[in-house]
Amino acid sequence: MEKLAVVAFGGNALLRSGQKGTFEEQVANVERTCENLVPLLEQGYQLIIGHGNGPQVGNGLLRHAAGEKEYGLPAMPMDFCGAETQGSIAYLIETALERVLVRHGLHRPVVSLVTRVEVKADDPGFSNPTKPVGPYYPEIPADGAVYREDPKGRGWRKVVPSPVPVAICNVDLVGRLAREGCIVVTVGGGGIPVVEDGGALKGVEAVIDKDLASALCAVKTGAREFYILTDVPKVYIHFRQPGEQALDVMTVAQAKKLLADGEFAEGSMAPKVRAGIFFIENGGESCIITEAGELGNPSCGTRIIQ
Amino acid sequence: MEKLAVVAFGGNALLRSGQKGTFEEQVANVERTCENLVPLLEQGYQLIIGHGNGPQVGNGLLRHAAGEKEYGLPAMPMDFCGAETQGSIAYLIETALERVLVRHGLHRPVVSLVTRVEVKADDPGFSNPTKPVGPYYPEIPADGAVYREDPKGRGWRKVVPSPVPVAICNVDLVGRLAREGCIVVTVGGGGIPVVEDGGALKGVEAVIDKDLASALCAVKTGAREFYILTDVPKVYIHFRQPGEQALDVMTVAQAKKLLADGEFAEGSMAPKVRAGIFFIENGGESCIITEAGELGNPSCGTRIIQ
Repeated sequence: MEKLAVVAFGGNALLRSGQKGTFEEQVANVERTCENLVPLLEQGYQLIIGHGNGPQVGNGLLRHAAGEKEYGLPAMPMDFCGAETQGSIAYLIETALERVLVRHGLHRPVVSLVTRVEVKADDPGFSNPTKPVGPYYPEIPADGAVYREDPKGRGWRKVVPSPVPVAICNVDLVGRLAREGCIVVTVGGGGIPVVEDGGALKGVEAVIDKDLASALCAVKTGAREFYILTDVPKVYIHFRQPGEQALDVMTVAQAKKLLADGEFAEGSMAPKVRAGIFFIENGGESCIITEAGELGNPSCGTRIIQ
Repeated sequence: MEKLAVVAFGGNALLRSGQKGTFEEQVANVERTCENLVPLLEQGYQLIIGHGNGPQVGNGLLRHAAGEKEYGLPAMPMDFCGAETQGSIAYLIETALERVLVRHGLHRPVVSLVTRVEVKADDPGFSNPTKPVGPYYPEIPADGAVYREDPKGRGWRKVVPSPVPVAICNVDLVGRLAREGCIVVTVGGGGIPVVEDGGALKGVEAVIDKDLASALCAVKTGAREFYILTDVPKVYIHFRQPGEQALDVMTVAQAKKLLADGEFAEGSMAPKVRAGIFFIENGGESCIITEAGELGNPSCGTRIIQ
């Protein structure tokens, strides 16, 4: 029986807060994350890997700002910086994953695609940018972008929209390669955001939620399962409060009710639960939100089902 | 009849010297280069695009150095920076090429792969690094790398090896996708250089010549033709000297003789001619060295044949 699954890695599974972020640290982190895929591979899963890029593109934007200041190199826009992180993170994943495969005697080609993801130019997100990116500035730069003052007084920071993904370039190819046995790395950082422009596509300054982009990839490839990796083993109600309770399973209706009740934090568990709901409502069988180390355990994580 | 060709773009077809290197300039440059592919596409060619990254990875290394100085972000090694440029350049090429395809009513999917290229750990290039990369330093940094003093007195600059490519990851897939009609972008910057390490692959600080990597890609995919784009319409003998003469065709034996006679400048035409010889000696039909604007013209460029 076909077992196609999409697994979404968090950007911080690769570049962890509390570390310096050296190359060696990143290589070790990504290898540890990839090691956790082994049980799924041994169970015969066909895999597509989506991944975040929050800390990486943040560093990229800082490097571009510093390069402009120090060497007069024009800082590139967000879409370009996101594309850079697709290249570098895919390289780290491919290389670490192959090392893991060799160690376990598994033979699977790994292929990484540079992936643009289409959003609608009239997405309401564009009129209300909320996602802070790049360096803090002492004053608002006169570049026409939207800036918000940091609540902790660190200065002004650009905010960009977070529009909803509607299409993924080359997604049919991704599904086909995965069914042939390739492990495919795609929709890095939620994909490079583009909008339709005269029949072709044009980059935009935005950040697409990586869990939602991975969910769309799971839907479009007809994956049965969608794994969202996070840093807790399950989804909780009353998280870190009295009466905290881990959830083994939620129906879509239950998940929507808990979201509406404010049980899941924005910028943390709420977007993951929403991505899971999107997957199930569009034909997916089950979405599992869990810690990487739990993969392959039949009772792992919190399962969202119809 | 199958017409599979590999086309190698120079990194400076995208980021030109004499420009500031803004995003808008790069987008316009890459679109102009892609426009030149139209005659080949209209003639029914199946295309694989290789590209350089000299100016881009140079800027990347400067941005990493500046990010370390300004924000304390660890500067990443050459292989990581090369992977970044594969993501960003592929994104620019995909997007510009699609615009060109739409304008000409051509329907071809464009797919970009993050591509590692294997070199031998005992390649003689590793004991004699010659390729200058990254920023100039007033004194030799104590990082164990090899530095050379700039002859124009701008300071010390890291030099890295330029080993010979021996294998390209996923090259069978590249050939298959191209034969199915996809335009495939691969071996960016000559590929991310890796060496065998315990049955898997490990990144190394090196720069693989992009024309040689593209030639290897042409050989391994069984392409009939290999186009090397440069900024002159043909190869010349006595280039920019009295008696300058454009060459329409060279046999491999003639090309080797002219190389040995020092007719072709190192770091410029010589590596292109060597890449052409490599292609023909390994089964290719013809290698054409020319200006992008000449593509599709039956008498374009200088043809290297058996």
